[in-house]
Amino acid sequence: MKKKITILPGDGIGKEVTTEGKRVLQKIAELFGHEFTFDYAAIGHDAIEATNNPLPDETLSKLKSTDAILFGAVGHPKYDNDPTLKVRPEQGLLKMRKELGLYANLRPIKLFDELLHASSIKPEILKGADILFFRELTGDVYFGEKGRKNNDNTAYDLMIYHRYEIERIAHKAFKAAQSRRKKVTSVDKANVLESSRLWREVVQQVAKEYPDVTVEHQFIDSAAMKLIQNPRSFDVVLTGNLFGDILTDEASQIAGSMGMLASASIGDTVGLYEPIHGSAHDITGKGIANPLASILSASLLLDISFGLKEEATAIIQAVEGVLRAGFRTVDIADATTPKDKMLNTQMMGDLI
Amino acid sequence: MKKKITILPGDGIGKEVTTEGKRVLQKIAELFGHEFTFDYAAIGHDAIEATNNPLPDETLSKLKSTDAILFGAVGHPKYDNDPTLKVRPEQGLLKMRKELGLYANLRPIKLFDELLHASSIKPEILKGADILFFRELTGDVYFGEKGRKNNDNTAYDLMIYHRYEIERIAHKAFKAAQSRRKKVTSVDKANVLESSRLWREVVQQVAKEYPDVTVEHQFIDSAAMKLIQNPRSFDVVLTGNLFGDILTDEASQIAGSMGMLASASIGDTVGLYEPIHGSAHDITGKGIANPLASILSASLLLDISFGLKEEATAIIQAVEGVLRAGFRTVDIADATTPKDKMLNTQMMGDLI
Ligand SMILES: CC(C)[C@H](C(=O)O)[C@@H](O)C(=O)O
Ligand SMILES: CC(C)[C@H](C(=O)O)[C@@H](O)C(=O)O
Repeated sequence: MKKKITILPGDGIGKEVTTEGKRVLQKIAELFGHEFTFDYAAIGHDAIEATNNPLPDETLSKLKSTDAILFGAVGHPKYDNDPTLKVRPEQGLLKMRKELGLYANLRPIKLFDELLHASSIKPEILKGADILFFRELTGDVYFGEKGRKNNDNTAYDLMIYHRYEIERIAHKAFKAAQSRRKKVTSVDKANVLESSRLWREVVQQVAKEYPDVTVEHQFIDSAAMKLIQNPRSFDVVLTGNLFGDILTDEASQIAGSMGMLASASIGDTVGLYEPIHGSAHDITGKGIANPLASILSASLLLDISFGLKEEATAIIQAVEGVLRAGFRTVDIADATTPKDKMLNTQMMGDLI
Repeated sequence: MKKKITILPGDGIGKEVTTEGKRVLQKIAELFGHEFTFDYAAIGHDAIEATNNPLPDETLSKLKSTDAILFGAVGHPKYDNDPTLKVRPEQGLLKMRKELGLYANLRPIKLFDELLHASSIKPEILKGADILFFRELTGDVYFGEKGRKNNDNTAYDLMIYHRYEIERIAHKAFKAAQSRRKKVTSVDKANVLESSRLWREVVQQVAKEYPDVTVEHQFIDSAAMKLIQNPRSFDVVLTGNLFGDILTDEASQIAGSMGMLASASIGDTVGLYEPIHGSAHDITGKGIANPLASILSASLLLDISFGLKEEATAIIQAVEGVLRAGFRTVDIADATTPKDKMLNTQMMGDLI
């Protein structure tokens, strides 16, 4: 198979982890006889420094003609400390999601058995947990009109959903549930929000087309609690952009570490694959970031964008093997990890 | 001391638990020589059934002339299953918060040592956790303009904050931190939301007036994760209405059960005290609800609204004593709880 993959390293540890993700893709090409070509493009803080634009036109046009995207992370403490800055790295990410129509963000939360003890949650609560999140990615309060008024003393963001936006992601979630444990938990705040009431209405309607799938509705506050109390009670979780952002980060604790979690953003055209973790400037440049989330993102890329199941599975098995042999990066290590099994980013990439 | 307390049982288990809360207040009056008089008013689904108004005028006028309010819960599955209903129980709660100016919701999360093992989180992660949430309660997407357009195919809610709303609750949080571990964690989504950027700006400014308090800013997604990963790293948490709703429910897992958590809603006039848990229709009428959240709400009422520290402490000690003696309601019981120590709602009230 001949394919072009565009790499967007972005900011912080984004560069370090996508380097390893790319190496794994190269190895797969070699082993399975594919021809992958790679190019790079700028996004986020880096792009702002170079062009004052967090998503330069050049990047966008590259992305529109590539076969799949491997993305790192964006973000920089400079902007976090100064809420008045007008040009911000995250705008690049959001604009990219919107322009490429990446409306469905799939975040599989699966605990590798070897990491059962790395979580702050009790192993007996976690064992067997396996959740697939469908987070809507191009609507909600992320993209509604926002601004200031009243002499900068009032700030607002419009939380808004259109029926078609909810329908298309609901269908994806119900379809996925059919080949899993046949349960969809839709999360909203319909007891307070009108946009959530529309969300619930539409999900109830779509559900009728999937009589073999059980649907359950939870309020976001209750879901945030139950996710920790009883993670095994969830199969597919379907939710909006903001609630999905919160729940999937929280759910990373189920997998032991954020450093293990990959995600796929898909829509009508090209697919984008990225870790759930952010740019993590506190550990940037130290070479200690866990590259497994980026490597597992590469596995999702092969599976979803290229339909290469065997190749995707080979990566997952490699990750399992390395974990089973006791190797760890610092975020998933514990007191029992021997010194010679503690790996830095590149060593972990080598082993996989 | 002579005081009038208005009880709003509301819906579901609200009735069962406030009955016990009231009994404890009566006992305190008797033991410490106070004169508390009680009256009742309707709110929520019950009030809708009787008057088609989730917050009847009669209720509101009672509340405006009382010394403190003990509230149960509102909500009913009928409305949750039908997002198109226009009159809803929660509107009563929201209107009450707004009309009474209850802009600060204090939610203390403290783990009773005896319940260290009741949580899904590992005891060694939890031990010593002690968090005080300040959730803003009369602004945000809860109260912004909401509606439908485009033939009911689009729904929206305006997320909106004014500077003064953020200032007044920030001051409360920083003051509270001064008599605790001197740390405030402010939670927002300033990398995406304009209202969060105003939030962060204002908190940064208010922080300058409290140089003895350390301030930290976290994004809501990251905070939802860290709360589980390392709950001890939080002291006072300051956040908006929606994020506070989510985080405090999630944090209930730190305390072992939602059934243990009380909250105080205060502002410029009267104070309202309520459990964090909701109406819980799945267990309504069975007499098994844990009344400790309502009883601990009564303790907060005595402390905050009446300044009766000794009386408030007496209640907390009674709760500790009963737990230490091994008594449990079903939500906080485990496999080791002997049958004769399993209590129903009323028996737990009796013991306290
Ligand atoms: C960086 C930020 C804008 C982003 C989001 O909130 O969507 C991130 O948290 C994510 O989950 O991909
Ligand atoms: C019942 C509901 C409207 C309410 C809220 O979201 O504020 C509840 O969840 C709470 O936390 O008090």
